[in-house]
Amino acid sequence: MSTMGNPANVFWHDCTVGKAERQKLINQQGCVVWITGLSGSGKSTLACSLDRELHSRGKLSYVLDGDNVRHGLNKNLGFSPEDRTENIRRVGEVATLFADAGLICIASLISPYRKDRDACRAMLTDANFIEAMLLSVFMNMPLEVCEGRDPKGLYKLARAGKIKGTAGFTGIDDPYEPPLNCEINIEQKDGVCPTPSEMAGQVVSYLDEKGFLHA
Amino acid sequence: MSTMGNPANVFWHDCTVGKAERQKLINQQGCVVWITGLSGSGKSTLACSLDRELHSRGKLSYVLDGDNVRHGLNKNLGFSPEDRTENIRRVGEVATLFADAGLICIASLISPYRKDRDACRAMLTDANFIEAMLLSVFMNMPLEVCEGRDPKGLYKLARAGKIKGTAGFTGIDDPYEPPLNCEINIEQKDGVCPTPSEMAGQVVSYLDEKGFLHA
Repeated sequence: MSTMGNPANVFWHDCTVGKAERQKLINQQGCVVWITGLSGSGKSTLACSLDRELHSRGKLSYVLDGDNVRHGLNKNLGFSPEDRTENIRRVGEVATLFADAGLICIASLISPYRKDRDACRAMLTDANFIEAMLLSVFMNMPLEVCEGRDPKGLYKLARAGKIKGTAGFTGIDDPYEPPLNCEINIEQKDGVCPTPSEMAGQVVSYLDEKGFLHA
Repeated sequence: MSTMGNPANVFWHDCTVGKAERQKLINQQGCVVWITGLSGSGKSTLACSLDRELHSRGKLSYVLDGDNVRHGLNKNLGFSPEDRTENIRRVGEVATLFADAGLICIASLISPYRKDRDACRAMLTDANFIEAMLLSVFMNMPLEVCEGRDPKGLYKLARAGKIKGTAGFTGIDDPYEPPLNCEINIEQKDGVCPTPSEMAGQVVSYLDEKGFLHA
């Protein structure tokens, strides 16, 4: 037990079961797969497909979906720039806890700003490891494709100026800053989008190569 | 996929891997053991001992310690009544996610107010189940015992009026409201406190009886 200094009078408790022991129990390594991209780019589709594929391999994963979290942990946040940043920070902190628990945590959020994503990467970068415990997956789909899909009808509303209470709609009147350092880039080939299974396969291969699928 | 209405334009995504499937994978049932009590009552000691005992039985558990969470997810919260409520709400929401992921989540927080604890219990009460997924453990230790231990020296500071930036110190100048409906009551017998291992045994027996240690 040691004091951490900030805030004062709040102590850090080290518990006896550590991350390595939990990982050994379930034979995998805790990490976060952070899926970023425009609305309609396929984030949730990949999250579900990846979750299913990992489960079929006997791995314990859990999806933190940006929209779902707004109904619980983040239900007191709106869409102002500060609230969007806090939304992503909280998801990053929770994802960090899940990774520490030994799970493969799949976070699926538009997360349009580089600085917010970088802050999450920093939470998950352990000085003791060369590899970060965060793998960034960029759904690199053109706006026209996402807007053409418009699965929630939100682009239509945004173009009509009918989205209330937001600071702007990402891709339309609020910027999306593409990652500069993503581990996995998901894109069209010859104008064809990869299937959910192909996308999941790309991520699973990466996790396997990096040793995350075994303790 | 269905709209939830609040906030508008935020959708709920159902993923294909459900709680039951995750539970089957790791042969246990996700739940939350919520340990409440005064500072110095033994919450962290029980949390660590329980975590160790569950691990030795091959169960995947994770400790959410109120103090530790204040260094991450809740680092932007202070000790005003509103912030204390929000502190507990967020831990409750995260514990709910962990239980949904299939883990036995051990939450250890003073959580002095009944209404805050009841709100967490409500999050974890699924209409489909008769049993709540939250087991409340009350560290029912007299103030004199806790103050006599004073492992962090906080009672001494509180008595000297030297705890800054708080709305009061629980047990001294802020109330602790004992649970009315706890599943497990940990107390002295003939003036002797149970050992960490005895306390953990009491909780593990309860979890086993209620079927949480198998899928």
